[in-house]
Amino acid sequence: MFEFQLLHSDGAARVGLLHLPHGQVRTPAFMPVGTRATVKTVTPEEVVGIGADIVLANTYHLYLRPGHETIRALGGLHGFMHWDRPVLTDSGGFQVFSLAALNRVSDEGVQFQSHIDGSRHLFTPERVMEIERALGADVIMAFDECPPGQASREVAVAAHERTLAWLGRCRDRFAELVAEDGRASAQTLFPILQGSVFPDLRREAAHRTRELGDWNGYALGGLSVGEPKPAMHDMLEVVIPELPGGRPRYLMGVGYPEDLVEAIRRGVDMFDCVAPTRNGRNNAAWVTAEGQVNVKAARFRLDAGPLDPACDCYTCRHYSRAYLRHLAVAGEVLGLRLLSLHNLRFLVRLTEEARAAIAAGRLEQWSAEWLRVFHAQRKTTNGE
Amino acid sequence: MFEFQLLHSDGAARVGLLHLPHGQVRTPAFMPVGTRATVKTVTPEEVVGIGADIVLANTYHLYLRPGHETIRALGGLHGFMHWDRPVLTDSGGFQVFSLAALNRVSDEGVQFQSHIDGSRHLFTPERVMEIERALGADVIMAFDECPPGQASREVAVAAHERTLAWLGRCRDRFAELVAEDGRASAQTLFPILQGSVFPDLRREAAHRTRELGDWNGYALGGLSVGEPKPAMHDMLEVVIPELPGGRPRYLMGVGYPEDLVEAIRRGVDMFDCVAPTRNGRNNAAWVTAEGQVNVKAARFRLDAGPLDPACDCYTCRHYSRAYLRHLAVAGEVLGLRLLSLHNLRFLVRLTEEARAAIAAGRLEQWSAEWLRVFHAQRKTTNGE
Repeated sequence: MFEFQLLHSDGAARVGLLHLPHGQVRTPAFMPVGTRATVKTVTPEEVVGIGADIVLANTYHLYLRPGHETIRALGGLHGFMHWDRPVLTDSGGFQVFSLAALNRVSDEGVQFQSHIDGSRHLFTPERVMEIERALGADVIMAFDECPPGQASREVAVAAHERTLAWLGRCRDRFAELVAEDGRASAQTLFPILQGSVFPDLRREAAHRTRELGDWNGYALGGLSVGEPKPAMHDMLEVVIPELPGGRPRYLMGVGYPEDLVEAIRRGVDMFDCVAPTRNGRNNAAWVTAEGQVNVKAARFRLDAGPLDPACDCYTCRHYSRAYLRHLAVAGEVLGLRLLSLHNLRFLVRLTEEARAAIAAGRLEQWSAEWLRVFHAQRKTTNGE
Repeated sequence: MFEFQLLHSDGAARVGLLHLPHGQVRTPAFMPVGTRATVKTVTPEEVVGIGADIVLANTYHLYLRPGHETIRALGGLHGFMHWDRPVLTDSGGFQVFSLAALNRVSDEGVQFQSHIDGSRHLFTPERVMEIERALGADVIMAFDECPPGQASREVAVAAHERTLAWLGRCRDRFAELVAEDGRASAQTLFPILQGSVFPDLRREAAHRTRELGDWNGYALGGLSVGEPKPAMHDMLEVVIPELPGGRPRYLMGVGYPEDLVEAIRRGVDMFDCVAPTRNGRNNAAWVTAEGQVNVKAARFRLDAGPLDPACDCYTCRHYSRAYLRHLAVAGEVLGLRLLSLHNLRFLVRLTEEARAAIAAGRLEQWSAEWLRVFHAQRKTTNGE
């Protein structure tokens, strides 16, 4: 349980297999986000159909509505949402800072007001472990403080220190909860490393996190939160060599197709992002040889071809661009479904191709070519 | 082609099989409505999965957006919407009166303004045949004038006369279009009988419509448009005996579960209605032993049981009432999908049960029992 098998490597990049209580996760893996215990617009069977092995759900949202005790009573997330494969829950650390109406941080935890009804709540490391235990995901994330991407060094240091202090408390409370259950844990706790864009803080986060335990996986937080993109790449190059090679590395909240490619090259194994479904609901789709397109574009009006000729998803196999445009213009729900499904498959297919390239020892050639094709349209035309 | 096989009868009710160019339709049949070339929120495969043999699409909406010539260029409705089974298009007669911003009726046709952008258009019987020919449905409906359910006799007579005059023009223009194609028609034209709630007009509509041709099916319009429910039942009892027994009868825009039961008892073979998907989008679901329920009801909060224990749909097989309530409260698109699918299956399952009861010669017992169970909750409690 929780074993991570390394199958292939190519430079810093790896292909692996993460064994979790509800199944195996092929890495590099993209995890569709099911914020409120539903990957927006699609069914669990459709998520399986696009090749995803694991989904993410959000502790903050589910704690507020319908409540973690409700979900516990209904069989945990797996039973509640009709998904019998692996699940990962984030800790709400990001949401209490980004979504809550008001928040006040202290060493104890974060007081915040619900973005739904303004009610007041307190998240402490201990409380979050209790909530995530009730939700029942295979992988639960430690409660962290996530500073903005442009944070000063002073703010970054404070968040980094607090995240480490809270990790110890998460570890202890999680161990107590497992002991109280009187049975082996079907969950594992991943730490989140902060440190903003400061290399020394990132290295220190890796070292001190490892001192706090031998974790089954390591998450990188506080990236893709407003900092410049080269800074994110630099931080990956700084921190990943400091992490144990035999454990998966999870880059939280990433990302867009090109971000996945760049991070896989640098040794990241797991990703999550709302972009595929959020873009889908905004009529934006990724197309292999065109980058991101808006399906409402007038040029699609009579286009009988598939959205992405290189894609094997349900949408691309059965519908024309003209029909997708019609659904988008008319505001039909089926359109949101079809685009969300395509975008999710696009990222999962990207990880499949990356795994094949790593196994073949040609990741550098593959990634250079993939990025060239994806960006070609952008360079040769004005796009949309 | 267009043959209607009568397989069983029980009183006025019948079980039949309507042969259409794109497949067979088992009657009594409920036709899911795909107003804008999509049955709202569900895929064609899901429509097949719930057991529906034919879908309806709306001429008025598709003429305005994306335009019938666009749909013709993309393979007609079948190719456009990825549905290779039978389709029926209405004629826009109902919509130009109920939806268009302004309309002016003359013997020539109806001038109206688009409800989308206020643009001006003219629908004549000839024009509607050209549009429906381009859309390419198996069954196309004649252009009619549909008066409100509370119309005076004078208004009802005028609409009835105009509908008959327009039927002759539809027939002639349709024959020309088929001849111009130089190939056998893959479409058949159904007349619509008006006459409001006046028995003599309804009988006269039947006789004069039959004088205008030997049609492959007969539609009853101007019912379920605001008249009292007993009046609808009376009109069915008046007009159905005047129609040829060997042709299907289609009651347009009906309906709710109890309406289907009552109309099947009186000899109706085909139905369509937006209620299953519209209710689904409003969190309303039909439940066999409870009537119509609102899935946001507080009593569902911790209910681990299926929405309808008597139902075999995807939603009822895999999700709890508590989860459906959560999706509804959170406003998640998956909730709309799951309820729409259930409501569609509910009506299709109703027709399946009615067919079995007719074949067994026990429709009266079945329908009395079905209605008793469906309404039991309403009588014993205050329901929602």
